Amino acid sequence: MIQSVNSSLLENAVSELSKLPGIGRKTALRLALHLLRREPQEAVALGEAIIKMRQNICYCRRCHNISEQEVCPICSDSRRDEKTVCVVENVKDVITIESTHQHHGLYHVLGGVISPLDGIGPSDLEIASLVKRVSEEDIKEVILALSPTIEGDTTNFYIYRKLSELPVKVTMLARGLSIGNELEYTDELTLGKSIQNRVLFSDTYHKS
Amino acid sequence: MIQSVNSSLLENAVSELSKLPGIGRKTALRLALHLLRREPQEAVALGEAIIKMRQNICYCRRCHNISEQEVCPICSDSRRDEKTVCVVENVKDVITIESTHQHHGLYHVLGGVISPLDGIGPSDLEIASLVKRVSEEDIKEVILALSPTIEGDTTNFYIYRKLSELPVKVTMLARGLSIGNELEYTDELTLGKSIQNRVLFSDTYHKS
Repeated sequence: MIQSVNSSLLENAVSELSKLPGIGRKTALRLALHLLRREPQEAVALGEAIIKMRQNICYCRRCHNISEQEVCPICSDSRRDEKTVCVVENVKDVITIESTHQHHGLYHVLGGVISPLDGIGPSDLEIASLVKRVSEEDIKEVILALSPTIEGDTTNFYIYRKLSELPVKVTMLARGLSIGNELEYTDELTLGKSIQNRVLFSDTYHKS
Repeated sequence: MIQSVNSSLLENAVSELSKLPGIGRKTALRLALHLLRREPQEAVALGEAIIKMRQNICYCRRCHNISEQEVCPICSDSRRDEKTVCVVENVKDVITIESTHQHHGLYHVLGGVISPLDGIGPSDLEIASLVKRVSEEDIKEVILALSPTIEGDTTNFYIYRKLSELPVKVTMLARGLSIGNELEYTDELTLGKSIQNRVLFSDTYHKS
């Protein structure tokens, strides 16, 4: 049931909040009433943080990650390995991979994956700019770090073909068992891949 | 895993969003990245709606409902029955009861219920102001519309005793079967109450 509220200011806040993904009208009303119960400066801090973020964050000219400058902090960090570029679907994936502390190179954010059903083709993504980057910069390895889905694999393959003429090594993330999962609950495709791509126990032992 | 983000503006927005109830850091990040993908004016509209709402909504001097003026639109609506006052726990309950279109009188928002475990006593609630209102205004009926919980019932009883000296009828919401629920899944207490408080079929038939 859609409940109407008596105040146009509350109604406006509820309607704006319920535009957010996963937030329906009921949740939006709960959030708005929560803010009304708290100190005014808390709501002002939230509102201003949202506005400032949106108005001042742009995209890195080089890797298309979010940035407050023309070039993002990762691209302009001289300690990072400029010869290795990790290709990801979106900004969230940069954050996820950064939190593993296992990638010391740069990124290239595609802005999505090829998905004909959603009307997303290669030209809607930052693929041409990736090819340009690889041909102009001194990049030795491109790591494809897209999700292991049909769309992700299609995009991986498309990029692989586009880069095949260039003198660059193209790698992709390993498919295998999830750490902490029971073997018997692992799907057969993944289990099969993990047998094909088995690694020397001594190698893993020394790396960890 | 707490994921750190590279931008202080994004970090700030994520940290403010995750202060909202039911929104963790992961959801906050998802919401912030969603706003970054949308048009800037959408984020500005959301931020401004939150700030304006919090800065301009106050509480009605008479019934303690939220209001943009000193007296709320319900209290100042001359078509409403000033002789009947519905006592509710919070602002959300006013909205819920309004959406039934069955109450044509005014409200009195307590701001909570008596709950010794949470340290909430009668003096923390708008009970004294209710008693004052009943003794000063021409109120004929007070409808207790608190939740049928231990705390709600305790508060009902406390208010009932406080009003017992005054010439006012005190009623409470009927307890009975939930419409649409199967009889066999109704708890025994509710079913027992619904037998005790059975109503003439012809009365219900004519009202609906």
